[in-house]
Amino acid sequence: MRVGVIGLGSMGMGAARSLLRAGLEVTGCDPRPAAREEFIAAGGRAVASAGALPQGTEALVVLVVNAAQTEAALFGPEGALPRLASGAAVLSCATMAPDAARAIAAKLEQAGMLPLDAPVSGGAAKAREGAMTVMAAGGAAAFDKAAPVLEAIATKVWRLGEQPGIGATVKVVHQLLAGVHIAVAAEAMALGIRAGADPKALYDVVTSAAGNSWMFENRMARVLTGDDAPRSAVDIFVKDLGLVTEMARALAFPVPLAAQAQQLFTAAHAMGQGQKDDGFVIRVWQAMTGIALPGDEEAGDEK
Amino acid sequence: MRVGVIGLGSMGMGAARSLLRAGLEVTGCDPRPAAREEFIAAGGRAVASAGALPQGTEALVVLVVNAAQTEAALFGPEGALPRLASGAAVLSCATMAPDAARAIAAKLEQAGMLPLDAPVSGGAAKAREGAMTVMAAGGAAAFDKAAPVLEAIATKVWRLGEQPGIGATVKVVHQLLAGVHIAVAAEAMALGIRAGADPKALYDVVTSAAGNSWMFENRMARVLTGDDAPRSAVDIFVKDLGLVTEMARALAFPVPLAAQAQQLFTAAHAMGQGQKDDGFVIRVWQAMTGIALPGDEEAGDEK
Repeated sequence: MRVGVIGLGSMGMGAARSLLRAGLEVTGCDPRPAAREEFIAAGGRAVASAGALPQGTEALVVLVVNAAQTEAALFGPEGALPRLASGAAVLSCATMAPDAARAIAAKLEQAGMLPLDAPVSGGAAKAREGAMTVMAAGGAAAFDKAAPVLEAIATKVWRLGEQPGIGATVKVVHQLLAGVHIAVAAEAMALGIRAGADPKALYDVVTSAAGNSWMFENRMARVLTGDDAPRSAVDIFVKDLGLVTEMARALAFPVPLAAQAQQLFTAAHAMGQGQKDDGFVIRVWQAMTGIALPGDEEAGDEK
Repeated sequence: MRVGVIGLGSMGMGAARSLLRAGLEVTGCDPRPAAREEFIAAGGRAVASAGALPQGTEALVVLVVNAAQTEAALFGPEGALPRLASGAAVLSCATMAPDAARAIAAKLEQAGMLPLDAPVSGGAAKAREGAMTVMAAGGAAAFDKAAPVLEAIATKVWRLGEQPGIGATVKVVHQLLAGVHIAVAAEAMALGIRAGADPKALYDVVTSAAGNSWMFENRMARVLTGDDAPRSAVDIFVKDLGLVTEMARALAFPVPLAAQAQQLFTAAHAMGQGQKDDGFVIRVWQAMTGIALPGDEEAGDEK
């Protein structure tokens, strides 16, 4: 099967390598030469532009940042559409508004393709292992056509409905939870520090109790060691909580906690922390209150 | 060992029964005749007032609702203090402000007792099994004296420091997380419903992904079945998020997410939902937007 992967970032590279391992004929597409070279070294083919994908590509995975990039990668002047075989499966994997997911799927259907609204989660490590989670919506024919691709990149494929848009909806709601959980993890850790709790003891108690979340456990571990290299950056949640509040506004639906968390990530971005690991939204509280963070001393030593 | 338990509510009854099973001589104290009768049937002794506890009680577990009740149970006109043996261990287990925990411990020390600031978590089921978590702070002598009690009621005892107050601090920070996690679980589920997601599918995706929290998994399961009988009531979080914002204000520390969640539980209380299960804070969004909740149809059938 001739497969294209547009976007060789941390998730796209993992998916592309997983497809190679599954024995498919994979062409990766990324404007960055380093990403193309890495994928060629792994045994794949690579092109700089979606318009240069092999003619007759039968399945396409679009793993770019947002709806605008997805639109451009498919339908732009250098887009992939003319290179696709009729009836190709097209997986739209970026986190985007449900309306955007529906519009993209409609255009693909009109062009004779089989669209899947298929946002993913799991992070870079899971992507490398072919163990992503896919929150997918689309017709049975699209799922059938995409089956070898889904099998190669994911261990869990949720079939959320026939209508494109519901995959995007579930992903956006998921990001609401993820974003608020990160921000409140930071709020709680920061308050605990100011109140005199030992940060590690607080972490140990919370992670063994009913106040735990996946994000508290994962992100506050990084805050405890002062490791702010981004696995997922503050700016991702500026964007994703923006999608949450846009979707909510379009539905005339109040989301007070998501809106508050959005303000906190926006504050972290304003402080110049946008490319830091998202758990370091805690630096907003540090800036307001002057608390010392666990990794500060070591970081100071490095300077 | 002669032990007293003040407060035979869901947690106190569980602790008192666990102490009985451990072979200690236990007197429970509760103004409600039904609670006393239940404990007597289980093999214990029971009194209506703390002032009627056996003379020479060597360890006391105070499992009432708040600091004011704890103060009254110990130092009030019908309080336990005159009944305690010198050097008795006194476990103050209610969730309260750190300042209140420190004040109570100081009074107990002045009276020659060994105080432990020892808030608990785990819920009624864990209390019955003797499997609570205790977030404890106090001197080594207090921990030593209380050892048989702690062993009987808890499987996990955190020793958070020598100074009373730090147990209360960690518990209050834990409740910040717990309260915000419940409120945001409701916000996300409500938004998903309005956006057209299937509530059960949304639950399944979130609980298998990075957006999960202990509270989302536990409380939204009840929302899915429409079971609003309180294991933990909305009013508990009106109270506990009140403690969070009071502690934060005393420290001049901003807690925007906790403050927002407090408003949402307050709204649920205002709607007459204070004694419903805390996950049903989701009815605030229902009232604002008219969404249908999963259990509504069945509930309607019952009427």
